[in-house]
Amino acid sequence: MDYDVLILGGGPAGYYCALECAKGGLKTALVEKQELGGTGLRWGCLPVKRMLDALRERQKAEKILFSRSSADVQEIYKGFLEEMQGIEIQLAERLSARGVEIFFGEGSFLTPHTYLVGERCIEAAHIVIATGTSPKGFQQVEEDGEYVITHKDAVSLEQLPKTMTIIGANVEGCEFAALFAALGVDVFLLEKENQILKGMDRDLVQPLLDQFEMQGVKIKVDTAVEAVDKTGSRPIVLLSDGSMIEAEKVLVTMGRKPNFPLGLDQAGVFHESQRIPVDSCCRTSNSHIYAVGDINGIGGMAHMAIQQGILAADNILGKRRELSSGIAVPSAIFTIPEIAGLGCQEQELLASRQRYKVGKYPFSHTWRGFTKGIQSGFVKVLFDQKNKLLGLWMAGDDVSEYIGLLHSVFRKGISLKDLEDSLAIHPSLLEAVWEAARNLEEREGVQDETTSYIML
Amino acid sequence: MDYDVLILGGGPAGYYCALECAKGGLKTALVEKQELGGTGLRWGCLPVKRMLDALRERQKAEKILFSRSSADVQEIYKGFLEEMQGIEIQLAERLSARGVEIFFGEGSFLTPHTYLVGERCIEAAHIVIATGTSPKGFQQVEEDGEYVITHKDAVSLEQLPKTMTIIGANVEGCEFAALFAALGVDVFLLEKENQILKGMDRDLVQPLLDQFEMQGVKIKVDTAVEAVDKTGSRPIVLLSDGSMIEAEKVLVTMGRKPNFPLGLDQAGVFHESQRIPVDSCCRTSNSHIYAVGDINGIGGMAHMAIQQGILAADNILGKRRELSSGIAVPSAIFTIPEIAGLGCQEQELLASRQRYKVGKYPFSHTWRGFTKGIQSGFVKVLFDQKNKLLGLWMAGDDVSEYIGLLHSVFRKGISLKDLEDSLAIHPSLLEAVWEAARNLEEREGVQDETTSYIML
Repeated sequence: MDYDVLILGGGPAGYYCALECAKGGLKTALVEKQELGGTGLRWGCLPVKRMLDALRERQKAEKILFSRSSADVQEIYKGFLEEMQGIEIQLAERLSARGVEIFFGEGSFLTPHTYLVGERCIEAAHIVIATGTSPKGFQQVEEDGEYVITHKDAVSLEQLPKTMTIIGANVEGCEFAALFAALGVDVFLLEKENQILKGMDRDLVQPLLDQFEMQGVKIKVDTAVEAVDKTGSRPIVLLSDGSMIEAEKVLVTMGRKPNFPLGLDQAGVFHESQRIPVDSCCRTSNSHIYAVGDINGIGGMAHMAIQQGILAADNILGKRRELSSGIAVPSAIFTIPEIAGLGCQEQELLASRQRYKVGKYPFSHTWRGFTKGIQSGFVKVLFDQKNKLLGLWMAGDDVSEYIGLLHSVFRKGISLKDLEDSLAIHPSLLEAVWEAARNLEEREGVQDETTSYIML
Repeated sequence: MDYDVLILGGGPAGYYCALECAKGGLKTALVEKQELGGTGLRWGCLPVKRMLDALRERQKAEKILFSRSSADVQEIYKGFLEEMQGIEIQLAERLSARGVEIFFGEGSFLTPHTYLVGERCIEAAHIVIATGTSPKGFQQVEEDGEYVITHKDAVSLEQLPKTMTIIGANVEGCEFAALFAALGVDVFLLEKENQILKGMDRDLVQPLLDQFEMQGVKIKVDTAVEAVDKTGSRPIVLLSDGSMIEAEKVLVTMGRKPNFPLGLDQAGVFHESQRIPVDSCCRTSNSHIYAVGDINGIGGMAHMAIQQGILAADNILGKRRELSSGIAVPSAIFTIPEIAGLGCQEQELLASRQRYKVGKYPFSHTWRGFTKGIQSGFVKVLFDQKNKLLGLWMAGDDVSEYIGLLHSVFRKGISLKDLEDSLAIHPSLLEAVWEAARNLEEREGVQDETTSYIML
């Protein structure tokens, strides 16, 4: 065999898998068809997050909001795009420093142990499929890269549009709405469900709604998109209620398709229409071939993809590890403000008929918060009747970082007493957590037709 | 009795104690001799932190460092001072909203149940002493408010000095050095020990040293202060090595004295020269009188004072609680960058002859870190031979917040496997924690004379 391990795809799952394999002493190769970094790094949450971070810092310092009239917004946007270009070079350098060989190009399985890239046939004892998914739009609204764009185009526009319609007020749609609104674009956000960020408690979403309102983001829920009329100079979105919206760009955030590698049959790997099923060690139907990240349909979040990549590496290295149960997986929405947390949400408890306790505390009431002049954002904790922590959520700046280390310990069980006895640094915003835990209110779920919440 | 509870002192310990007592339905009074908020809020870490936060944001946005030539630095400083003035009004409003009655003035115990403030004699079933400590300088360098100042003066100067000598490179000394250096003041930092921030691992201190060097902060260790010559127009500090330093202000950060309430004998409360001893429920020798915060000599950090205030309230309310063992109390140094963490440090392990494992990971190597262009800061984890987490420390911006919730769970025991399996949000800087945990190196302590570290 040429290699101990061959990894297909240089996104988060493949990148971390490759580093771990090489660190463990395996001769490792990685094939990437476009650019290292994958969806998240180059075209997804990372550039969005990066731009929002910088815009927010600037806003804070200047104590103003960006408006369309800011002449330099276009320059800022271009600067970001240039910055992002250097990043895959850094990724390649780190892989190379660990001894990973990188091959660029499209490829195909020839046999269960061989993969052809260009004219090079790579033979490997183990193969890890980490090819991810791609945006595809949906039936009525196929992406075309010009009128109807996806997140890939949205972070690499030649020119910022003055107006943009975003289809889908899901996580991706809201993140891009936050970004383009901050850049001064007139944003129209469309959602077919009856609320934005369906599945998230309304109180957690409220600070974002307030921000959108202040920025003039227009939101329409309960509205399906019938079609996009591209006959004029600017695309017109036709809605189920008969109205239409004209904007320079239509960003579609719904629908993704799996990037199956070619030759899966030759590899003896079973796949369904939308994913490659795996066992608890991320092995496919052919046990020396693994599938990690979005392609296996488990999770769909970058941090889960990374952990799967590392888990596959550990298993290949003989350190048997299995996927954890997926309890309390942390999630974050990178908007201004952010929303992040883990565990269950109140709407699940409300729909479950059980009694529970909820506590909330605004960051503005912590001493650090009020000296900093923080206006919005809060912590929300949910406990069961036996005072076991069920959920911990936050809305506010940087809360994606604050959730940071909780996952590992949340699963072990955190009690009300644990949080009450907890010493948060003073002065820090996270004092709001124990404050919330000390201000609990009992509530009871009422399961009926009018409050039929969707379970997360 | 007029009141169920009387609290002496409106600093963090007294403030939180009063809120909890009132929330529990007790008729509560609070006496404050100066201004609500205590050392931390008005004169200590909070204004320093606030100013550093704002300066850092400004620096980031403008991508420049402040220099003495910035004409508006004086204005910035004045703005901060004005902002801080409104804060005790907010504190008073919150106390009043909960039903706490506030009395301002100096006072004295008359009996174990009565305290005289001005002409008002307050009778209470329980009394909580939360009077804290005050800066006092030390024998050779008494504060005078003009040449030799303390932190109280330092956050309320009429005019920023051009030069400042800071005596004591302890936490307070380093925080003020960071603040005044950021404001463009020429700072000279003096330390009688052989290093700044003695007791903290050198690698954690290095990013701060780098920043000080860049800002031109001059540091002299192993040097005692013999005297301050105040005969000229500017004070001159005379050092043990025979040299002298002239600067507009001398800030002394060493030495604090307890603020004993008057009439402790009448109250039947035993005290030592520097503190009022308490039992595990924060009760003094007279069991209906509690002492919480710095006055009892336990801890000396604001977050411990707050928890003691709440614990005393809980006990008064009949919910018996005891002080926890003080294991892994989190601590933070609010400099640029910050240093924060909990558990033991490597120098303790090095001095203990045991084998241990250490892992480090720079924030700049996380995907979020490198897209943000973060240059410095890292996570350091320490495990014992059985893979139990012994210490977790960070250096970098905002790390005081990131340590946030770890205390409550750290005490329950976090294993290497817990951290390995942990899902940090991607992209977030805190991915550096599991990266550090996956990159451990074994080391062994060597206890000898030349490495006699001070235990934390």
